[in-house]
Amino acid sequence: MKISIEESIQFYGKKIDTLLKEFIPPERDDNLSEPIWHHLRTGGKRIRPAICLITCEELGGNPDDALHFALAIEILHNMFLLHDDIEDGDTMRRDQPTVWVKYGIANAVNAGDYLLARAYQSVLASPIPLDRKMKLLEIFTDTYEKTVQGQALDIDARAARDFSVKRYLDMVELKTGFYLACGMVGGSIVSGGSHEVIDKIWKLGKLMGPAFQIKDDLIDLTIGKGRGGVIGSDIKEGKASFLYAYAYEIADKDDKEILARIMAKERETTTEKDIKDVLDIYGKYGAMESAQNHAEELTKQAKSVIDDIPVHNKEVFREIANFMIERMT
Amino acid sequence: MKISIEESIQFYGKKIDTLLKEFIPPERDDNLSEPIWHHLRTGGKRIRPAICLITCEELGGNPDDALHFALAIEILHNMFLLHDDIEDGDTMRRDQPTVWVKYGIANAVNAGDYLLARAYQSVLASPIPLDRKMKLLEIFTDTYEKTVQGQALDIDARAARDFSVKRYLDMVELKTGFYLACGMVGGSIVSGGSHEVIDKIWKLGKLMGPAFQIKDDLIDLTIGKGRGGVIGSDIKEGKASFLYAYAYEIADKDDKEILARIMAKERETTTEKDIKDVLDIYGKYGAMESAQNHAEELTKQAKSVIDDIPVHNKEVFREIANFMIERMT
Repeated sequence: MKISIEESIQFYGKKIDTLLKEFIPPERDDNLSEPIWHHLRTGGKRIRPAICLITCEELGGNPDDALHFALAIEILHNMFLLHDDIEDGDTMRRDQPTVWVKYGIANAVNAGDYLLARAYQSVLASPIPLDRKMKLLEIFTDTYEKTVQGQALDIDARAARDFSVKRYLDMVELKTGFYLACGMVGGSIVSGGSHEVIDKIWKLGKLMGPAFQIKDDLIDLTIGKGRGGVIGSDIKEGKASFLYAYAYEIADKDDKEILARIMAKERETTTEKDIKDVLDIYGKYGAMESAQNHAEELTKQAKSVIDDIPVHNKEVFREIANFMIERMT
Repeated sequence: MKISIEESIQFYGKKIDTLLKEFIPPERDDNLSEPIWHHLRTGGKRIRPAICLITCEELGGNPDDALHFALAIEILHNMFLLHDDIEDGDTMRRDQPTVWVKYGIANAVNAGDYLLARAYQSVLASPIPLDRKMKLLEIFTDTYEKTVQGQALDIDARAARDFSVKRYLDMVELKTGFYLACGMVGGSIVSGGSHEVIDKIWKLGKLMGPAFQIKDDLIDLTIGKGRGGVIGSDIKEGKASFLYAYAYEIADKDDKEILARIMAKERETTTEKDIKDVLDIYGKYGAMESAQNHAEELTKQAKSVIDDIPVHNKEVFREIANFMIERMT
């Protein structure tokens, strides 16, 4: 009986959770496990690692052989959340104080570094032939590096006076594209997938990452991302969204000035009036429509890449793509 | 003609510098290269990577094959300095503002993460057989992980009310022992060294690391580490030295209280009188003599480990050990 992708994610998510507890024992009373588990307990649906295992299985591999790599992806994801919270000055995550707020910056930086060490240890523990393991280490390192480069562009974006759609797309491809593809690519490598399959999956990730991110940017202005569906958290946080990039690039001098000024404001000082002003400018230049069109175009391209993946069972990639676009928030 | 270890370090240091500039191009105008080169330009004698190459050569390997691994060790070292400066709140390094002071905490955390990515890329670029490269990735990851664990103990030490010589030695073995050994072990692996050689070199590092660190702790109280030979910077910074651990462990209740109180003080508020009080307590309990004896005992043990290394040319390890103890500050 065919099970749904949601059921697969739940099934594999439990396996990931079990291995995670083995790899980073929660009950240790030290400056590493305690802050890390404070963070890990705030949740996470283990979607990224589950997609790695689903890909491996559908391509004919044994998903248990990909379990350590999948765990590494999940640990890497959490390492970035932990360091990003410091970098962005975020004080709350899922109704809990962030690690740096609760345990101090020193422990938060160091706990993030420790997560990365555990992630590499997990890749190294993969029960697979040497050449495949080396490939996993290569794509894991590439993904880690690209994500850091994307984060550098993101940190820079707030102050950038020449921000544009191109810079936004570069940033998002680096910061979320590699990352989304990495699990699927790892699953393919473990299953013994060919170079062609792997190249296509990278391409797919580089389209899906931005498509997913633009959708996420739109959600903030339609149904809202914050607690109780608050609209405009990205504007409050000065986050460089597609809408900001699009409007900022084509706005006239006065509107550019308003956008940049509100973008640079601290979260606490951004008013409801500021948010309304930004939304008005977005409306004036058609930023929402452009975002919608851009996301749809990327999704179309992604689906055409899927058609070209040289494997029999393409359906799983279509399901993953749909799931990412529709549900992954 | 035999050249001295100082000359070897200088010779190999230049090779490392050349590859470093290839791996992280200095002239890039972004949020990664700029802060990283601000830090790298403050200096560094490339001793750790040079020792890796010297070991490889003396054991019959081609040092060029170990060059990428040696560079990775140097990059890792700098990644830790960069994150440590944030964690310790240090504002100056070698007469320059630290990266987090000049570029902000966000860029400093992220630039450190980027260094680690470049370090792994450097190991992955090693021109050696797959099985040896995998071993390098394993010891590199182990060393990275242990150093982070040592840093966790170090962050904890300032507040610890049960600090002891044992905890100090655990911390120092993790924080500097693996790290010192890692270059030598990597050089042995590249040269095709046996398990026995490699095990002994790990053992050597775990003795040399603490010996070196205790010597460094003593220097702070004798000839001084700060600019113009200022005595007692470790006391000012609240650094958990051997002397602090030793005196704190055996001191009576009143002296313990004084030590803990001064240890917990911010650097700016620690007075000359505080430093004198701590030095008096160290004197009362014989902390200097104990440190001297302990360092000598560790060095003696290290030399006996060297006698047991199953290679013909042990002289190089003796030279490295002497160099570390005498000069590496």
